[in-house]
Amino acid sequence: MTTPTAAMLVIGDEILSGRTRDANMYHLAGMLTKAGIDLKELRVVSDDRDAIVGAVNDLRARFTHVITSGGIGPTHDDITADSIAAAFGTGIGIRDDARAIMQARAERTGSELNAARLRMARIPDGATLIHNPISGAPGFSLGNVHVMAGVPAIFQAMVAEVLPKLDGGVPVESRTLRVPSPEGMVAGPLAEIAAIHPDVSIGSYPFIEDGMYGTNLVVRSRDRAALETAFAALQASFG
Amino acid sequence: MTTPTAAMLVIGDEILSGRTRDANMYHLAGMLTKAGIDLKELRVVSDDRDAIVGAVNDLRARFTHVITSGGIGPTHDDITADSIAAAFGTGIGIRDDARAIMQARAERTGSELNAARLRMARIPDGATLIHNPISGAPGFSLGNVHVMAGVPAIFQAMVAEVLPKLDGGVPVESRTLRVPSPEGMVAGPLAEIAAIHPDVSIGSYPFIEDGMYGTNLVVRSRDRAALETAFAALQASFG
Repeated sequence: MTTPTAAMLVIGDEILSGRTRDANMYHLAGMLTKAGIDLKELRVVSDDRDAIVGAVNDLRARFTHVITSGGIGPTHDDITADSIAAAFGTGIGIRDDARAIMQARAERTGSELNAARLRMARIPDGATLIHNPISGAPGFSLGNVHVMAGVPAIFQAMVAEVLPKLDGGVPVESRTLRVPSPEGMVAGPLAEIAAIHPDVSIGSYPFIEDGMYGTNLVVRSRDRAALETAFAALQASFG
Repeated sequence: MTTPTAAMLVIGDEILSGRTRDANMYHLAGMLTKAGIDLKELRVVSDDRDAIVGAVNDLRARFTHVITSGGIGPTHDDITADSIAAAFGTGIGIRDDARAIMQARAERTGSELNAARLRMARIPDGATLIHNPISGAPGFSLGNVHVMAGVPAIFQAMVAEVLPKLDGGVPVESRTLRVPSPEGMVAGPLAEIAAIHPDVSIGSYPFIEDGMYGTNLVVRSRDRAALETAFAALQASFG
């Protein structure tokens, strides 16, 4: 079985301008790992139509699943839905089912379904809605592209909604050995262990803590027996 | 004057696997903003030669500056330097000046300049070294691509070394107004203010806090007078 792959596209200026630290990438990476889907690429682009169209078309051609976050709100700088429609060359307009969701929420909360909010019912032709249990305004899936909100609580709810429906795989498991030696001392024996355990991936992550150099060795595999064997070899060398 | 642009490429499985939260992107985004360089795109790819070559060649053609982090250590999965050489179609080998730096450090710290560490002296032909005041092993610049370590302390030191040498611009300044209203109530008047202040960019960032919806409105501009005028208009509407 081929392992399904994924890419994530974050849309908006929030991270690029240094204003905030990302939260959604970290959340999605963890959830995809549990679902057995290999996250191969993350991208962040600004609220720029050409940038979004270019990235979406590149990523959807190369990976099984593409998840986007951000730019589907009610304001003038929210251009994700229109850009996704442009990327697919399809039309876009206010859709009755999306409008009905917005209308029901407005009535329930006593808020106004104004022109700005109604923009959030603009959905590209042929898309399937993604339920938003937090604030109503839906995301949508078009082809292999799943378009979600950027607000972390809503993004997480939409991921929880969509992920069980995606083709998944056998989850990658991992074990980490923390070694109190600099990477340069570990690298030689590590390469030998990696060479005789080709069925696992072994990553090496150097760190500096209180002025001391250390290395985290992380074994990853979909095969638990292979994982344990390789981990035991690491412990024998470095433990 | 054209505003210089930048992209950042993070290389490695650490973020993609959900193991760690990024720190270097956040640091670089803030530093570039201060330097007046527009960060237009962030990408994260795994330690995969084709993925690195493809991303580097795409980004260096589209942006003034490209900064990479990660994958220049001594272990078997550190393939950034070789991949950069492949992207530029140049040779790569152990370089005398880089070896001398590694040798001097080994003597100073009483450590061994073993084969693994010597790999960190492999530098693509024609590159300029980037000084590493923390652990010795240099980064390098080749064309408009600046290749730095992934360990945050070293990455930050290399950014501090390189950034003053890059073409910069007038820094973008920003002011933020925190509004205790959901984005859907703010969007209409906000679009009008944005339309009559085309010389600033106005971003809108919704949040949910203790179950209440609010919106941060961020005005950005290189023109301080225009920034203050637009910010005053926001305060008059929403303050």
